[in-house]
Amino acid sequence: MNKFVIAVYVENKFGVLTRVTSMFTRRGFNISALTVGETESPEYSRITISMEGDGYARNQMINQLRKLYNVKKVELLEPDKSINRELMLIKVKNNPDTRQEILSAASIFRSNIIDYSPDALCIETTGEPSKIDAFIEIMKPFEIIEMCRTGIVALERGSGSILKK
Amino acid sequence: MNKFVIAVYVENKFGVLTRVTSMFTRRGFNISALTVGETESPEYSRITISMEGDGYARNQMINQLRKLYNVKKVELLEPDKSINRELMLIKVKNNPDTRQEILSAASIFRSNIIDYSPDALCIETTGEPSKIDAFIEIMKPFEIIEMCRTGIVALERGSGSILKK
Repeated sequence: MNKFVIAVYVENKFGVLTRVTSMFTRRGFNISALTVGETESPEYSRITISMEGDGYARNQMINQLRKLYNVKKVELLEPDKSINRELMLIKVKNNPDTRQEILSAASIFRSNIIDYSPDALCIETTGEPSKIDAFIEIMKPFEIIEMCRTGIVALERGSGSILKK
Repeated sequence: MNKFVIAVYVENKFGVLTRVTSMFTRRGFNISALTVGETESPEYSRITISMEGDGYARNQMINQLRKLYNVKKVELLEPDKSINRELMLIKVKNNPDTRQEILSAASIFRSNIIDYSPDALCIETTGEPSKIDAFIEIMKPFEIIEMCRTGIVALERGSGSILKK
């Protein structure tokens, strides 16, 4: 099982996200993360899907996505030819005994403290998914209250664009 | 029409994302952005939905989401009581005449250059959605090749958690 990332450029039309997610459900594939956001054009949105599966599953998914109504472009973003980033907000217990350790770890990970209350610290961190995973591991002993990850967004390296494929 | 953000804590079960997005389609509401990501527990995912609508639409959505199978918690994240963040990757033309201007703007916005090629610069920027919008406006004259936004992730301020509601 490999992880892979697919970028889908869709018309900003009613129900298109449901068409995309239903297709995955119907085919029995599970999405591990998904983001939908605006693009440079108000008429289009860009969906980034992370999923696990073998090469057959991956190719099937791409072919099925290309057939969907309102889907303009579908691109597989190969790990070595693309930039993957994720954002996480994580809230941990603010305890005078461990506060300094948390602040040091945040600083090493170039993360920002974005909320501070007597009982909790909220930290924002950005990076490749493996960096986010590592930061979570470090935060675990300090008691994670809640967290929220965006899922991956990705662009291919260089000057290419999904629209010119 | 107001923008609002809803956090949905769901069991990591097959088809739950489709149940959520279908409900929006069925009720005639359009999602402007959506993220699904892992949480502190492997059994749960957290979905963050941004949408536009009046107070009636908002309350309807929350009530309908609470009725869905595999949905554990639903919370409206009020702008003044929560932290909203978004991540964007944006690729712009790399032109010797404008490069310095792009780098200065990126630095003022505390953004990072994460890919550099003879024809393109890829910039990563994180912040509140209004900051991301402002950065896009600044990049427009430099020719945007493509971009990708995660959509909002949000946590409530202070030490509360969606799980303790």
